[in-house]
This record gives sequence, structure tokens and C-alpha cells, in this order.
Amino acid sequence: MSIQRLAVIGVGLIGGSLARALRYAGEVGEIVGCGRSRENLDRAVQLGVIDRYTHDIGTAVSGADMIFLAVPLGAMESTFKAMRGRVDDGALITDGGSAKASVVESCRVGFGHLPPGFVPGHPIAGTEKSGVDASFRELYHGRRVILTPTETTSPEALERVTSMWRSCGAEVSQMSIVHHDEVLAATSHLPHMLAFGLVDTLARMDENDEIFRYAAGGFRDFTRIASSNPVMWRDICVANSEALGAMLNRYIAEIEALAETIRRADGERLLEIFSRAKTARDRYIESAPEADSTE
Amino acid sequence: MSIQRLAVIGVGLIGGSLARALRYAGEVGEIVGCGRSRENLDRAVQLGVIDRYTHDIGTAVSGADMIFLAVPLGAMESTFKAMRGRVDDGALITDGGSAKASVVESCRVGFGHLPPGFVPGHPIAGTEKSGVDASFRELYHGRRVILTPTETTSPEALERVTSMWRSCGAEVSQMSIVHHDEVLAATSHLPHMLAFGLVDTLARMDENDEIFRYAAGGFRDFTRIASSNPVMWRDICVANSEALGAMLNRYIAEIEALAETIRRADGERLLEIFSRAKTARDRYIESAPEADSTE
Repeated sequence: MSIQRLAVIGVGLIGGSLARALRYAGEVGEIVGCGRSRENLDRAVQLGVIDRYTHDIGTAVSGADMIFLAVPLGAMESTFKAMRGRVDDGALITDGGSAKASVVESCRVGFGHLPPGFVPGHPIAGTEKSGVDASFRELYHGRRVILTPTETTSPEALERVTSMWRSCGAEVSQMSIVHHDEVLAATSHLPHMLAFGLVDTLARMDENDEIFRYAAGGFRDFTRIASSNPVMWRDICVANSEALGAMLNRYIAEIEALAETIRRADGERLLEIFSRAKTARDRYIESAPEADSTE
Repeated sequence: MSIQRLAVIGVGLIGGSLARALRYAGEVGEIVGCGRSRENLDRAVQLGVIDRYTHDIGTAVSGADMIFLAVPLGAMESTFKAMRGRVDDGALITDGGSAKASVVESCRVGFGHLPPGFVPGHPIAGTEKSGVDASFRELYHGRRVILTPTETTSPEALERVTSMWRSCGAEVSQMSIVHHDEVLAATSHLPHMLAFGLVDTLARMDENDEIFRYAAGGFRDFTRIASSNPVMWRDICVANSEALGAMLNRYIAEIEALAETIRRADGERLLEIFSRAKTARDRYIESAPEADSTE
């Protein structure tokens, strides 16, 4: 058993699934949950996801040797602040936030410094559902988890957090903080913006009811991610505004050039663009995992 | 039996599925196929989709009382040209093209005029597969078909083509040609451009292999339509360049404003945009048909 006491701050889909997977793997002794909703936490105890809970973050982390933060990006700073002075020496801290520079900054500001036991992380997994009822132990199976050590993260801490995720069936890799935020801006944050932007463009048109009525199946798939949690996405945009802003500029340049090619009705050039995109997409599909997941 | 002899020009997913559905409904006597690939047409006979075939369009349409054109938009003009002088008096002509102004123009130019029996149409159905092997008789079941009569279409022709689609289980509605092209630009052509544009943007980045490696499930859904046939989409873009160009301008304005909001990290405004989009998307899903279909 590699973890004596795990503190999960935020017992929803992400935190609950980690707790379930570690329990199943026999890698954890006690699991303490922390959150605001008594109903959700009672449910988590009832489901056996956690052993007990508290609403106080400081109490939750005291005595834990592994602390997992699964709170919204916008709540990271206040969470670190509440942990200040309450974390045991040698305890490890990791998280599941989708933008890493912002989490590291939240730690620096809220906690006062970057402890050697802090290993920022991002499991690339999720579903559209939320809450502990949506959690399941296989969520991370075959999924990628990216760890982005800070300049003070100790090699031992990095190794232990890597092992923790591997015991959940995840494929763990490392990246610099900046690079993580760029890659995720491209592969996740940008597509979400495009889908939100498309649905909003159509919703603002006068004849929007009619337009949605004639939307076909491709539209359904394309806009599925526009049904994601608006609060979470507001936080991600604010947290990763720089990398996402840069990706949006790159994309706008591409789509403006495409619009110009369409206005010129330059069939040869269009065929070239569409063929290149199809080839890239088909190649991606061949190598990508099958299952449904978001974020 | 309302159709004595049906000529299907282009026996693939769209044309083959219409033939199968009409046959099953007992609405057609003989079905003559026409196309370029002998292999595909032999297969269509073998599957019972058509009774016989010819590679000559003029021969195929002679003696038919219903002619269905399921050729790419780029081949419409030459198809109408080949039909010139070979269509029986009173025969009806309809099609499955995704952009209607262009098909009407192809008829005017290729055929020489717009006959009263010509009823431009667009079944909003399809899958990513193509060829007669992909055709099935339920393709149009519960799907929308939009008919866009020209200024010379006779009421009787419109009524008979409406009945034909209804006998395939489709829900038929009418729209002006211009309006159809605007609605489809918004709901189908624009999303395809955004997906092609996204995949192409990423494919052109230096670290594209790595980026695709970290793409998650949402990306898979979002870009599925970028695997569509590049030739078909080139044709659609050229055929509907005006309406699509206008939609692209509208979208670019939206996404530029969104990018600016992200750069300002204006959380309140972002939450407003994302919430409005989520509401519109969730409302769309409640009212939309379930099954997978594209175009």
C-alpha cells in the first residue's frame, strides 16, 4: 500500500474516480473527502468512494500523505491558501487542473511557495457528467496523464505520483508547464471555443429556431462539446488565456484564408486543404483511443 | 405504383438508398441505374438495388417518368447537358445536391431551360460511407427532405416528388432556393469548414504528431466531419460560395470577439457566451433526431 491516507479535495467525477481506482488497486489505506455539498459527500461515503469527510480543507489535508486537488481552476488559489501550514512534511500534492501555469501560480500565491512535494498534473479523461455518482474506477484506464513538474518538484515526488497514476491504468508522461498549456490549448481548449462560438453564432441569428431544426447529425457531433459546463470553461479560458489566445489567432488566420479561398471559389486550393485535413484526421483516428471522453 | 420507370444517375449511398426505399414501398416498377463504374453498377444489380444499367445518361433517362440525379455538384451541369433532348414529356427530374442555386443554374445552362417537371431537392441524410454497398432502405426514414421549387416548377411535379419522398419515410418541407442555401451554409457547410480548418491548423504546426497524440475524445467527435470526402466538399464550397462566405464572415466576427474576450480574461462575459451556447445546444438536442447522419 503506497498511500496511507489520501485527501481528495473535490469529490466529483475526477476526484471520485481516482479514489475508486486507487482503492481497487489496493494502493490506499484511508480516503478523506472534502467539499462543500454535504449531499454529494454523504453519497460518496455511501458508495464507498471515501471513508469519511470534512468541509474544512485544512482538516482534510492534515495527516494525509497524498493530497489530490480536483477543484475548479478558479478555486485553486483559495484551496492552496486553506492548506497553508496544514500539510504534513513529506506529503505529496497533485491536482487534475486542465491548465498548469495557472495552478502553479495559484500554489505560489496561495501556499506561499512551491513545495518539493507538489507535482502538477492533468489526467486527460472525463465525461460530460459530473458529481461523485458519475465517477467510476476505469475512468483513467488507458488514458494519458501529463505531469508538469515545477522547478522545485523533487524527483521522488514525481516518481510517486507517476506510480499512483500507473496503478490506475493510466499512461503517464511529462511535459513542461508551458508546453502542456500550448498542447491543450490546441487539442482541447480551441475546439471547445469553436463549438461554443458556432452554436452562439447560430443562436444569435434571427431564424435560429429554423436553423437548428435543419441541423443534421454532423452538427450534433460537432457541437457536443458546446454542452460542457460553462463555469469550468470560463475558468479554463481565464487560466490559459495566453496560450489559448495564441492558438485562436493561428486558427483565425487559417479560417480567414479558407474563407477567402471559398470566396474566390478556388477549387484546386480547397481540394488541397480538405485532403490534407482528411489525411491528418484519418491518421489521428488510427492511433487514437476508442472510448468517449472529453476535456 | 406511382413511378413506372425510375432512372437513378449516380448509384451510390444517396441514389441507391432512394431506389431501395421506393422498391420496398412498392412505389416503383423498373429501376435503371447510370454511372461510370461498371463494378459498382454490377454490384447494384446483384444487390437488387437496380434492375439494369447503362453508362450513357441520355439512354438512362429516355423512357423514365422519374429521374433522380445523385451526382456530385461539380458533375450536375454535364449531366443536365447529357439529358438535353432525351427526357420524356411529363417526366419529373429531381436531385439530391446539397446546394440548390448551383444545381438550378446547372440545369439552366446544361439543359437550356428550367422544365416544369424539375423539382430541386435535398435529403438531409447520409453517412460517411459511399458507394452502393453503403446504401440502405431506411436512410431517409424520419429524415428531412427540403424541396426548393424553381419559378417554373409545376404544382403537380412538386406534389409527386413530395409523395415520393414521403413514401421513403422522409419529412418533406419547402424552402426558397436562396433560403435553403443559407440554412445549409449555417448548419452543415460552416461546421465542416471549421473542422477542416481546425485539423489543418494543427496538422501544419511543427509539433503536430505530439499534438494529435494528446487529443482527447471531444476532439474525435469535433473533427469527425473533417474525414468527409474532400472532392464533395470542394464542390459544395464552390457551389455555395456566396452563402457560405457570408456565414464564415459572421462566424469570424464572433470568434474574433471571443478571442478578444479571452485575451481580456473577461470571465463574466465568457460565462454569458458559454451559457447561451450550452442552452441553445441542449435545446437543439432535445428536439433533434437521434441517429447518426451527416451532410
